[in-house]
Amino acid sequence: MAQNIYDDPDFFEGYAKLNRSIHGLEGAPEWPALNQMLPNLAGLNIADLGCGYGWFCRRAKEAGANKVTGFDLSEKMIARAKEMTADEAISYLIADIETLKLPEASFDLIYSSLTLHYIEHLSELLEVVYQALKPKGYFIFSVEHPIYTAATEAHWIKTDRDEKAWPVNHYQDEGRRVSNWLAPGVIKQHRTMGTYLNLLISLGFTIKNVEEWGPTKEQIEEAPELAEERERPMLLLVSVCK
Amino acid sequence: MAQNIYDDPDFFEGYAKLNRSIHGLEGAPEWPALNQMLPNLAGLNIADLGCGYGWFCRRAKEAGANKVTGFDLSEKMIARAKEMTADEAISYLIADIETLKLPEASFDLIYSSLTLHYIEHLSELLEVVYQALKPKGYFIFSVEHPIYTAATEAHWIKTDRDEKAWPVNHYQDEGRRVSNWLAPGVIKQHRTMGTYLNLLISLGFTIKNVEEWGPTKEQIEEAPELAEERERPMLLLVSVCK
Repeated sequence: MAQNIYDDPDFFEGYAKLNRSIHGLEGAPEWPALNQMLPNLAGLNIADLGCGYGWFCRRAKEAGANKVTGFDLSEKMIARAKEMTADEAISYLIADIETLKLPEASFDLIYSSLTLHYIEHLSELLEVVYQALKPKGYFIFSVEHPIYTAATEAHWIKTDRDEKAWPVNHYQDEGRRVSNWLAPGVIKQHRTMGTYLNLLISLGFTIKNVEEWGPTKEQIEEAPELAEERERPMLLLVSVCK
Repeated sequence: MAQNIYDDPDFFEGYAKLNRSIHGLEGAPEWPALNQMLPNLAGLNIADLGCGYGWFCRRAKEAGANKVTGFDLSEKMIARAKEMTADEAISYLIADIETLKLPEASFDLIYSSLTLHYIEHLSELLEVVYQALKPKGYFIFSVEHPIYTAATEAHWIKTDRDEKAWPVNHYQDEGRRVSNWLAPGVIKQHRTMGTYLNLLISLGFTIKNVEEWGPTKEQIEEAPELAEERERPMLLLVSVCK
């Protein structure tokens, strides 16, 4: 079973205070880029793997989706999602994405935001995603970028010229990384960019778009603390189709 | 016109002493990985963009290629390539890859090793490559990895734990980088991984394989100095088809 860090009280409390928890999609600086990668959602059957509070599920329904199902391991998150939702076309299910089963050829879009880097057995999950998509269906996801997850001790450093830099090491050594983000002992999985893309290609997916998210000038003007995200690629957004 | 650094006497002399110059493909540690990405070369018409001494052109002919044309900006490199070649099916042409014209639908494979990161107008070159390939033709290339080219001051640093790390910064700022590799003032172009892949996709290419080269255990046993290339991705190898 996957680590259920979101139900850890410290983590849940810390997470609840993040911009993306309070303000939903508008609080996530990568959302405009991810949104641009989405197809027209009108009439689609959608699954959201790692739906959290359900912000995307509700947005998808507003955009005309036919049926949206959000899955999350965290009972607390699913409970909050249900509290915030009053729409029979949206369902939320407590489920371990790591061992998820989905009905065959039933979704037009499978979406996953910042969840796959917690998944140990990724190729098994991607197989489930592939078979659950209808022909020409889309899988669109974001993960922490491999450059961000690589280092075992991840924080900014200063170069000789006193510039800020992100130290990359252990890049080729894939597997478990432990971080202390919001709570101690959060387990993530580092994978190279090549591994993500080649796994998808080997299953039969066509790569449509690969975005290494960085903030726009306008975003930095509004939130100057985002400027450092032009120095390193922190998030990887990928769109593929069956 | 592109910078012709290979005809700079210091650069040419330094380059001539590299393993990959003396030992050819076997002297390039990424060659086994690149070789694995190639289709069966028997009967193919092949272009090599940035052919250098012509090692790949000759290897392709040995592997059964029908006709191989190598292009390089450096007169000295082309002269050396011709000296080492006695085969009418192989031609070498002095050409600026930056402004190259190629006949339409005439190649089964276009190959390019460690050349595209010198090209300023990459999208124009990729258009030329696309139209010059026959349907289902392959474009297979290696470049310096975006993580390697990003920093304006690129050298290993030590982390607080005294581990070696590669400092990434300025990742999102694409464009000119000046290095002093073999000669002062070598101009390279930094691009993100997303830019490389999305340019190819937008032209109509299908991404087949993305390898962020790192040495194998066996390679490190033979050449321990390669170990540091497991810490960072230094080279990016890409295979796409039309």
